[in-house]
Amino acid sequence: MRQSTRGDVDPFIVMDVMESARKAEAAGRSIIHMEVGQPGTGAPAAALTALKSDLSDTLGYTVGLGLPALRTRIAQHYGDIYDIDLDPARVVVTAGASGAFVLAFSALFDNGDRVGLGLPCYPSYRQILRAMGLTPVEITTTPQGRFQPQPGDVDGLDGLIVASPANPTGTMLSKTELAALAYACEDTNTALISDEIYHGIDYGTRAVSALEVTDDVYVINSFSKYFSMTGWRVGWMVVPADHVRQVERLAQNMFICPSHASQRLALHAMDARPELDANLEVYAANRALLLDGLPKAGFGTFAPPDGAFYVYADVSDHTDDALAFAAEILDRAGVAVTPGLDFDPQDGHRWLRFSYAGSTADIAEGLRRLTAFMAER
Amino acid sequence: MRQSTRGDVDPFIVMDVMESARKAEAAGRSIIHMEVGQPGTGAPAAALTALKSDLSDTLGYTVGLGLPALRTRIAQHYGDIYDIDLDPARVVVTAGASGAFVLAFSALFDNGDRVGLGLPCYPSYRQILRAMGLTPVEITTTPQGRFQPQPGDVDGLDGLIVASPANPTGTMLSKTELAALAYACEDTNTALISDEIYHGIDYGTRAVSALEVTDDVYVINSFSKYFSMTGWRVGWMVVPADHVRQVERLAQNMFICPSHASQRLALHAMDARPELDANLEVYAANRALLLDGLPKAGFGTFAPPDGAFYVYADVSDHTDDALAFAAEILDRAGVAVTPGLDFDPQDGHRWLRFSYAGSTADIAEGLRRLTAFMAER
Repeated sequence: MRQSTRGDVDPFIVMDVMESARKAEAAGRSIIHMEVGQPGTGAPAAALTALKSDLSDTLGYTVGLGLPALRTRIAQHYGDIYDIDLDPARVVVTAGASGAFVLAFSALFDNGDRVGLGLPCYPSYRQILRAMGLTPVEITTTPQGRFQPQPGDVDGLDGLIVASPANPTGTMLSKTELAALAYACEDTNTALISDEIYHGIDYGTRAVSALEVTDDVYVINSFSKYFSMTGWRVGWMVVPADHVRQVERLAQNMFICPSHASQRLALHAMDARPELDANLEVYAANRALLLDGLPKAGFGTFAPPDGAFYVYADVSDHTDDALAFAAEILDRAGVAVTPGLDFDPQDGHRWLRFSYAGSTADIAEGLRRLTAFMAER
Repeated sequence: MRQSTRGDVDPFIVMDVMESARKAEAAGRSIIHMEVGQPGTGAPAAALTALKSDLSDTLGYTVGLGLPALRTRIAQHYGDIYDIDLDPARVVVTAGASGAFVLAFSALFDNGDRVGLGLPCYPSYRQILRAMGLTPVEITTTPQGRFQPQPGDVDGLDGLIVASPANPTGTMLSKTELAALAYACEDTNTALISDEIYHGIDYGTRAVSALEVTDDVYVINSFSKYFSMTGWRVGWMVVPADHVRQVERLAQNMFICPSHASQRLALHAMDARPELDANLEVYAANRALLLDGLPKAGFGTFAPPDGAFYVYADVSDHTDDALAFAAEILDRAGVAVTPGLDFDPQDGHRWLRFSYAGSTADIAEGLRRLTAFMAER
């Protein structure tokens, strides 16, 4: 039976690591998971308790743009956190950030349009673009540029995706840097998409929303990271006022609506900040351990870990084959880590990503194992 | 800010009816809802009770193809209902049938590919195709052909979507008819997509799955109709064995996974058949009322209502403007019905869809009002 060429997206290289880790655990070995990009915690307990009461409702389809109460609550969040007065009409509840990207790409781009992304980046940007018949354009970044696209990179693009804090690097864009990118995009009629799913997970400096510098942007966020609701698949998008109707029609047709129960849970989770801030304290403790311990273990060169829960380390002193190196670390140290190739096909062969989204006990043990492994190597 | 042309999909015409109905109710009027395409019931109570226990688990991401236990249970369903021995590896759990269409179109078609659909049909087929840069090809059908595409229609297409039971008509394809379409598709390298989301809702004759006549097909189904779980957004797809890897990669990137809680609930719902079959008895009673009463009211010409919960009636004796007629029925009779234009831009101006997914008391009252209205008109 026929298959498309657009659907021939790259496999996730990290899946090989995860499968090896699974096999090792099945064989009785202890493995510390520093490869996973999700919180080890579930949704806030207070929110789950409230959801149990909601389960007596029918929970049929919601309207395509999402529960009005949730859209209003998200708008209020922009007031609370960023001091932005946001019209709830511009908020679109989505089936995770993934669903938001599908909607944004449909609303903004036509067949073959060129959309830029700075390497390294979240691998699915490239793959979703390809799967939708669009053209991902890889932008080489530099350590001096904090591994982020620069205004000069925008020329010749139909769209640009930026992420701050970024995955895998954790680097953030300042207000000045975001504004410069936004102006460059406006100058060239390039659609700016700002992935803000790691907002709320930062350490001392608050992440800046693109909405603080422009309204001409699609801002994408999620309940998966700070709100710790990965498996519930709910996120949101803020779009320009004159794009709402088109996005609504696309959402009605492509998704009908995000999961109703997940939307209710998200609404409850937004009022469960004490629990969520406790998760954040765990990440902060884990990050402090790694920033102290990784250089001592031999991983001394990494991207500025401003936010999110990753350290992206240059391992070119040790290998030019990060995939083999990750396999060796798994096999000999019992620590699963992610090789950089999924994030950066050009340069990822000399980088590893360490996730510190797990418990502090796990991260401490992982660091101990990494240190011992590197000392023996 | 730039917008795409692909994203410029048609508005839902029925939304005007629904908004008018909402306003009438807000003004204190009683409205019977025969426009909605979803069960009035929620998920089975037994399944919801089981889900409450699951909520103490973390419910993080599942693997992209869905919970293995659910995939196995769905494969067993094909044994139970259709006597088909289906490999669970071919089952893909999706974010509703909507998510399945996005995945199927990505896996099968390239930019501009031509995908046929018989009019009248579910409007979102057209809109999702457009939003993904593909070309919907409208196929005119006939009452003699049960409003379904015919093997001769396949020529020149890259793909064909069929639905049995169909929305809005409720007509079904026999095993012979499905086989003839499947052979025509194989002959011309046309990808066949069989929308089976109304399976389980039939009246005396069991709906035939395309899997009973070929393995060269994408079969799409959902937990929204028979399983009465609309708002949970979970469905499934069965794909050819050699397509699984590609679909898996697309699913990982475009969706990560369907809602974990919804997958758990779906698994529980598959063992809640007594409750679900009780819903079916309500639909059967409602259908009997309409098949007796609609002709007496003046709506005597309709598509063979083999399955689903719709009667699609030819109202050309009364109007050539079904939209205005639906507005008149809402205004004067207090019954919300769906004009045919969303389903069929060519001929829908002379058809109305009556949904009988509500309670029998509501359907009886709706029929009483329709009869009185037509008698006075």
